[in-house]
Amino acid sequence: MIQKHDNKIKLLETFDNTYPGRNYLITHQTNEFTSVCPKTGQPDFGTIVISYIANKKCVELKSLKYYLQSFRNDGIFYENVVNRILDDLVYILKPKWMEVKGIFTTRGGIHSTVLASNGKKP
Amino acid sequence: MIQKHDNKIKLLETFDNTYPGRNYLITHQTNEFTSVCPKTGQPDFGTIVISYIANKKCVELKSLKYYLQSFRNDGIFYENVVNRILDDLVYILKPKWMEVKGIFTTRGGIHSTVLASNGKKP
Amino acid sequence: MIQKHDNKIKLLETFDNTYPGRNYLITHQTNEFTSVCPKTGQPDFGTIVISYIANKKCVELKSLKYYLQSFRNDGIFYENVVNRILDDLVYILKPKWMEVKGIFTTRGGIHSTVLASNGKKP
Amino acid sequence: MIQKHDNKIKLLETFDNTYPGRNYLITHQTNEFTSVCPKTGQPDFGTIVISYIANKKCVELKSLKYYLQSFRNDGIFYENVVNRILDDLVYILKPKWMEVKGIFTTRGGIHSTVLASNGKKP
Amino acid sequence: MIQKHDNKIKLLETFDNTYPGRNYLITHQTNEFTSVCPKTGQPDFGTIVISYIANKKCVELKSLKYYLQSFRNDGIFYENVVNRILDDLVYILKPKWMEVKGIFTTRGGIHSTVLASNGKKP
Amino acid sequence: MIQKHDNKIKLLETFDNTYPGRNYLITHQTNEFTSVCPKTGQPDFGTIVISYIANKKCVELKSLKYYLQSFRNDGIFYENVVNRILDDLVYILKPKWMEVKGIFTTRGGIHSTVLASNGKKP
Amino acid sequence: MIQKHDNKIKLLETFDNTYPGRNYLITHQTNEFTSVCPKTGQPDFGTIVISYIANKKCVELKSLKYYLQSFRNDGIFYENVVNRILDDLVYILKPKWMEVKGIFTTRGGIHSTVLASNGKKP
Amino acid sequence: MIQKHDNKIKLLETFDNTYPGRNYLITHQTNEFTSVCPKTGQPDFGTIVISYIANKKCVELKSLKYYLQSFRNDGIFYENVVNRILDDLVYILKPKWMEVKGIFTTRGGIHSTVLASNGKKP
Amino acid sequence: MIQKHDNKIKLLETFDNTYPGRNYLITHQTNEFTSVCPKTGQPDFGTIVISYIANKKCVELKSLKYYLQSFRNDGIFYENVVNRILDDLVYILKPKWMEVKGIFTTRGGIHSTVLASNGKKP
Amino acid sequence: MIQKHDNKIKLLETFDNTYPGRNYLITHQTNEFTSVCPKTGQPDFGTIVISYIANKKCVELKSLKYYLQSFRNDGIFYENVVNRILDDLVYILKPKWMEVKGIFTTRGGIHSTVLASNGKKP
Repeated sequence: MIQKHDNKIKLLETFDNTYPGRNYLITHQTNEFTSVCPKTGQPDFGTIVISYIANKKCVELKSLKYYLQSFRNDGIFYENVVNRILDDLVYILKPKWMEVKGIFTTRGGIHSTVLASNGKKP
Repeated sequence: MIQKHDNKIKLLETFDNTYPGRNYLITHQTNEFTSVCPKTGQPDFGTIVISYIANKKCVELKSLKYYLQSFRNDGIFYENVVNRILDDLVYILKPKWMEVKGIFTTRGGIHSTVLASNGKKP
Repeated sequence: MIQKHDNKIKLLETFDNTYPGRNYLITHQTNEFTSVCPKTGQPDFGTIVISYIANKKCVELKSLKYYLQSFRNDGIFYENVVNRILDDLVYILKPKWMEVKGIFTTRGGIHSTVLASNGKKP
Repeated sequence: MIQKHDNKIKLLETFDNTYPGRNYLITHQTNEFTSVCPKTGQPDFGTIVISYIANKKCVELKSLKYYLQSFRNDGIFYENVVNRILDDLVYILKPKWMEVKGIFTTRGGIHSTVLASNGKKP
Repeated sequence: MIQKHDNKIKLLETFDNTYPGRNYLITHQTNEFTSVCPKTGQPDFGTIVISYIANKKCVELKSLKYYLQSFRNDGIFYENVVNRILDDLVYILKPKWMEVKGIFTTRGGIHSTVLASNGKKP
Repeated sequence: MIQKHDNKIKLLETFDNTYPGRNYLITHQTNEFTSVCPKTGQPDFGTIVISYIANKKCVELKSLKYYLQSFRNDGIFYENVVNRILDDLVYILKPKWMEVKGIFTTRGGIHSTVLASNGKKP
Repeated sequence: MIQKHDNKIKLLETFDNTYPGRNYLITHQTNEFTSVCPKTGQPDFGTIVISYIANKKCVELKSLKYYLQSFRNDGIFYENVVNRILDDLVYILKPKWMEVKGIFTTRGGIHSTVLASNGKKP
Repeated sequence: MIQKHDNKIKLLETFDNTYPGRNYLITHQTNEFTSVCPKTGQPDFGTIVISYIANKKCVELKSLKYYLQSFRNDGIFYENVVNRILDDLVYILKPKWMEVKGIFTTRGGIHSTVLASNGKKP
Repeated sequence: MIQKHDNKIKLLETFDNTYPGRNYLITHQTNEFTSVCPKTGQPDFGTIVISYIANKKCVELKSLKYYLQSFRNDGIFYENVVNRILDDLVYILKPKWMEVKGIFTTRGGIHSTVLASNGKKP
Repeated sequence: MIQKHDNKIKLLETFDNTYPGRNYLITHQTNEFTSVCPKTGQPDFGTIVISYIANKKCVELKSLKYYLQSFRNDGIFYENVVNRILDDLVYILKPKWMEVKGIFTTRGGIHSTVLASNGKKP
């Protein structure tokens, strides 16, 4: 299921993990995620939380911001937002373990969350 | 104990799970659930939280909203609300795992919660 | 603008104010108000807060509950919900002052509040 | 409307205000008030907040506790609980200003508050 | 240690569990529990949380309310309140698992909690 | 300073105020406002709160949603967002009083709020 | 009513107000106040909030800490704690306005607050 | 490391556990703990949480209050406060399991917590 | 009392107020303020809230950030931090009204706030 | 990966663990951590939480404060802040287990956390 999403992936930059021998946890969270509902064309809003245990590479923060902003005008379902961010970051970072959580705002009185992970938490 | 509740079930629509090979968690929560107490005829209010790991199918959000609204004028006990929503969604989605939680407002100074699940969380 | 809404008003009962000479404040709040959107037919949910300084009569609590429940299947706009509850209670109680606030749940990402009052707070 | 409620009032003790020349505010709050509904015989629960600016006398705390506990098995309406506590304390303390607030737990989905005062806040 | 407390137990009513084949969790919580300290005669206040997995029977909510109210004027220690409620409900319901938690208000600056359970959580 | 912003303004629809003789307060709040910083091209996020006392017209909710969404890809400063929404709505509704508040997310460690009003609160 | 409490007062130090021409508000709050109940000998605990508009002098923070600690083993009523701190600080600082608030922990289920001020807030 | 601290220990009283055959959890928490820093002589403040599963004896609440108050003017480090309370209570109660947690207020911008236990939680 | 603090002031940039005819409120808040205590050399931390009604000029956000950061290694008392920021911004912006609030972290168990303003709020 | 960072490490002092035979948990938390971003030169702010089970030595609190303050003007990435504090404290204390967590303030709308540990929690 791992695919290259070339345009978005090109936005992501990495730097070398200074402590590759230690399994430590890095978490990045943004409350400013927005995309567009592919069915209604209406904007969607949410929080994205990315947690991982790095292998050789860490994601550079500014490039992660641009990557996440690139969804701004994409028509994409909640489930696919979370799984695609996971696929793209796993493809670039090859982490020991990664989890992506999307917490989306209420639509029609229903509030949805999607949580996906890759690898086994050491 | 799995039964078809045909009228309500017909309201539910599904779409194909794009990532069937990955065990990821989907949660839908509404704070706008209401039904009627079968004993007193008084309205009941609560929050319903549905969590599942999809197999081949995901539940479509708008149809889920209509399904949950269909309880509005039904006379049904708290315990049965939660177990029936679980049965109906399991029947339609055949998920790898599903959990339904109902958190009901205070009646006579007592606040009740019911939590039921189907399958083993992978 | 004061009108009799006879069917609903008949649900309201009163009892004599034991302290008519004192201007004291009574507040009743329910988080369990629901009605129907007259445009979409979708259920609306909200909190209603009624505050008043009684004259000769106070509203009986159980009858107030039945009165508020009587909106359950009515198609009515937020603005009218609040103004009508105010009109009905003013008609029945003739309070020295009354205020009704409706705090409605989010629709299309917008959360609305309506606040109306009658008389001058002593 | 000021009446002596002799049995309860005998429970209240006072001590001399050490700073009678200064208008300062004293507040006592208990979350442990309970009485009985005169209609249904069911127990009622609430928070009582007493605020006052003393004249020559302050209420002794332990006696206030016993006074408030004396309502435990009384059948009395919310409105009367608050007005009577105000009357009794005004009768005993002759304060420059006093306010009593009762915040009662939810009954039938409705949460009620009663607020009464005596004198003009200096 | 299981004993019949006949007077209180007679207040409890049950109804048949509609889903005896499923291990689902039911929780009832009241913030309106009060009893009397057997040492000082002073009223005690607390929250009682009852969680269980039903076997063949569920406890009827109104009868549970009356049962809990029956402690109102009993002189009983915190530890015994929790263990006795557990014993009585286990005796009546024979649940697969039950847990009772009492969270009591501050006395002498100390806030106490007691948590007891019966059976093994499936 | 009142100007027509024709493209955006065309999105706004109104309905007749049913209670023009009463000064009652209407509030609409969205946590899903986004625009673009005209200096850096980076997306901005915020909450917009619109409060008003209607004259002859009220703003229709769905049209308000579309109007607020129309800022999504506009380059505009915080101060201008708030003042322009105020100008547009005042132009369309001629309210007795209106206030617009924008609460924007943190940028460079600084969190900003802008609050503007038109008319005198009756 | 202003009295010198020489031993305690000697602990307080001041420094010159750099902005005597401007009426600005200074607030110092400690959650670590403790004294002893003169009746029971039991320790009392509370929060003290001191707000003032300085004239020519400001209170030095470390000396204020020592001053407040000097109550640690004093037997003194809540009302007197607050009024005495106010008297002592007014005596030393001659502020344009000062307010002292004491918020004390629960005793016998009752939580008390005392609020005293000196001068008129400019 | 278990030592007798005779003076303090003499303050502790016990009563017989009515349910010695059941492993149930008792928790006592006070937010009113204070001692003195042995290095600076400054007062320390904190919250102490004691949790245990009783064997044959339970600690009597009032005696526990006096025991905890006996630290008021002792010079003792945070680590020793927690370990000594644990040692003293284990010595007196011989519980199946006990845990003591001390949560101390901020000193020099650093907030400290110490958590010690004895025995294995059944 | 208005003085030029030339080095810091040079960091501040302004832009023209687009709505000079309207009295609207702008608030900027940072939780990331730090300076150094002139007495102990220890770092101080706090939140700064700047509110103003602009005249002809508004402060540019990025320059405000650099200005506030310039205090990082300055030895300066809490009272002077707030008054100086007020003086500098008033000197540069000539606002109709401005208020600066500093909320500083706990030192020796005491938490301090300073609030100063310039002009009369229109 | 354990390295000596001699200048900083010299700031750390230790004292003997009085209870080396017991595995108890010590936590120190400061909300006043600041360093400098090595890329932009901008100040970073965060909370550092250090938890450990001591072996023979405990870290002295005042020296820990000076050690953490020594990062104030260092240019260092989030990941390295956390790993280096862990390395330095492990080098000095040889704890049975230690965990360091850094929770950093929002930058570019992204909030980051880093969590590293050494040894196995007993």
